[in-house]
Amino acid sequence: MPRCIEWRDGAVVLVDQTLLPGEERWLRLTDPDAVVDAIRRLAVRGAPAIGAAGALGVALAARAGRDVPAAAARLRAARPTAVNLARGVDRALARLPEGPDAVLAEACAVVEEEAASGRAIGERGADLLAGLVPGRLRLLTHCNTGWLAAVEWGTALGVVTVLHERGRIERVYAEETRPLLQGARLTAYELASLGIDHRVVVDAAGPSLIARGLVDVVVVGADRIAANGDVANKVGSYPLALAAARAGIPFVVAAPESTVDESTATGGGIEIEERDPAEVAADLPAYNPAFDVTPHDLVTAVVTERRTVRPSEGDTL
Amino acid sequence: MPRCIEWRDGAVVLVDQTLLPGEERWLRLTDPDAVVDAIRRLAVRGAPAIGAAGALGVALAARAGRDVPAAAARLRAARPTAVNLARGVDRALARLPEGPDAVLAEACAVVEEEAASGRAIGERGADLLAGLVPGRLRLLTHCNTGWLAAVEWGTALGVVTVLHERGRIERVYAEETRPLLQGARLTAYELASLGIDHRVVVDAAGPSLIARGLVDVVVVGADRIAANGDVANKVGSYPLALAAARAGIPFVVAAPESTVDESTATGGGIEIEERDPAEVAADLPAYNPAFDVTPHDLVTAVVTERRTVRPSEGDTL
Repeated sequence: MPRCIEWRDGAVVLVDQTLLPGEERWLRLTDPDAVVDAIRRLAVRGAPAIGAAGALGVALAARAGRDVPAAAARLRAARPTAVNLARGVDRALARLPEGPDAVLAEACAVVEEEAASGRAIGERGADLLAGLVPGRLRLLTHCNTGWLAAVEWGTALGVVTVLHERGRIERVYAEETRPLLQGARLTAYELASLGIDHRVVVDAAGPSLIARGLVDVVVVGADRIAANGDVANKVGSYPLALAAARAGIPFVVAAPESTVDESTATGGGIEIEERDPAEVAADLPAYNPAFDVTPHDLVTAVVTERRTVRPSEGDTL
Repeated sequence: MPRCIEWRDGAVVLVDQTLLPGEERWLRLTDPDAVVDAIRRLAVRGAPAIGAAGALGVALAARAGRDVPAAAARLRAARPTAVNLARGVDRALARLPEGPDAVLAEACAVVEEEAASGRAIGERGADLLAGLVPGRLRLLTHCNTGWLAAVEWGTALGVVTVLHERGRIERVYAEETRPLLQGARLTAYELASLGIDHRVVVDAAGPSLIARGLVDVVVVGADRIAANGDVANKVGSYPLALAAARAGIPFVVAAPESTVDESTATGGGIEIEERDPAEVAADLPAYNPAFDVTPHDLVTAVVTERRTVRPSEGDTL
């Protein structure tokens, strides 16, 4: 399986996700501020992938002999909601006293860990869903959570991929995910590559598909999971959780441990990124929050690479 | 206030809403099948407006000496969800034995009634909201429900307009309403014309705006209201009702009596129009239901031109 970001020959190499699926252009970045820019404009996106990007950005700064703490601060601030970014930056920065090679080694370890967690999340999530719902599944998902978001394999789409290998997927409904259409552009592209039957729907439609009995389970990723199980994820996740709870179907969050933020007690403490209103409409007054918070009582399960937690039953992380 | 559709000099004259706000092009239609086409492609849209269009289309057929029942059947079938269309067509058709002038008179009466109901709905809805929520209101709405949808004045936007006249509007959040962007194109245009502070948001964001306490009340229109108070409206209304109920804010439906369908017992009996998947994404497998059904227990009030009904408290229509 490909990786959306990696270290290669002294540079950060990543596929520019803003151009997919029309064009597959790989960027080779050697300046940490070019990594900041790539994170900000979503050339690299998805909580695990920007964690990797942040760590590799610090490695670039360290090798160039730049003001590494300042570069790290700019990387950390590139996007506020996904905890993976700050965590990846801080892990790499912590090795600075040992020299640039140690920083790079740590950054590469972050990349490997984000990449490795995907398969384990996929297996654990598939086992969970097999226990929750009998037969072939009609899944609904939001945004993009495959290898493009998670370095390799994926989180929610990693679960889908394992279920597909086991012959357990009937159909995936992929919400288009306005304003930047990560669902219609990236998830549909990944599902087509995997040969999985899928339908793209507008974000407004997901809750009523659930109400009409067309969906067996909702599976999404996460950008930050608070200690009490509240989940910040791409805006539009919360309405799916509301609809799933009313319909009595599971709402499952698939994410690596690196997305769990035990130091944030509840979702109320998670900063919600507000992006450029022009992403919504170029010539109109608009408001563009990029994430929402799903309260823990609506979260059937959080699946990571090493545990399954059930926030709606009172489990904490 | 302008009208989006009227009878003028032997023709149906309507503004082509697919071109707004970029271009204001008025169409002059003399063939009933041109009216069918205009309804299908949403050149004229909104439950009250297509009720008017259907009635006027029958009048065109009658004046032309065409097979009027066949033309009426095509008009009635142009879109299935809004009951106003079938009702407008049937009212005009019922006068056929009296001759084409009687059919036209009835069609014009439909237009007048749809136009006249708006101001009354606006006043009644504004009174209701003043009683439900103190102070200046932050409203959230979906799709378009102004004069473009309701011949003149509007339903949910009619309520907004009256509240604005009374100095009671702080801000309106208008969901963009994918796939055809009636919110971003039409509602934003109407709100700007009225000088009302507004922000366009993606449809995925509305529920979390409600959860975050940014919204005092949700007000939407309707395409068909069942006897038990279940409400079919543009897809994306149901998630707002779920979020409003959880947040404890009112979810109010503003619609004329012509949208109430006492002969349909519950929302389960309402046909949900499925439109061309290409409206969602031209080159992808997509699924495009145009409406959803909000169960009556989530509907704080239905406001028509002559009554206020509270489905969540057990009222029926």
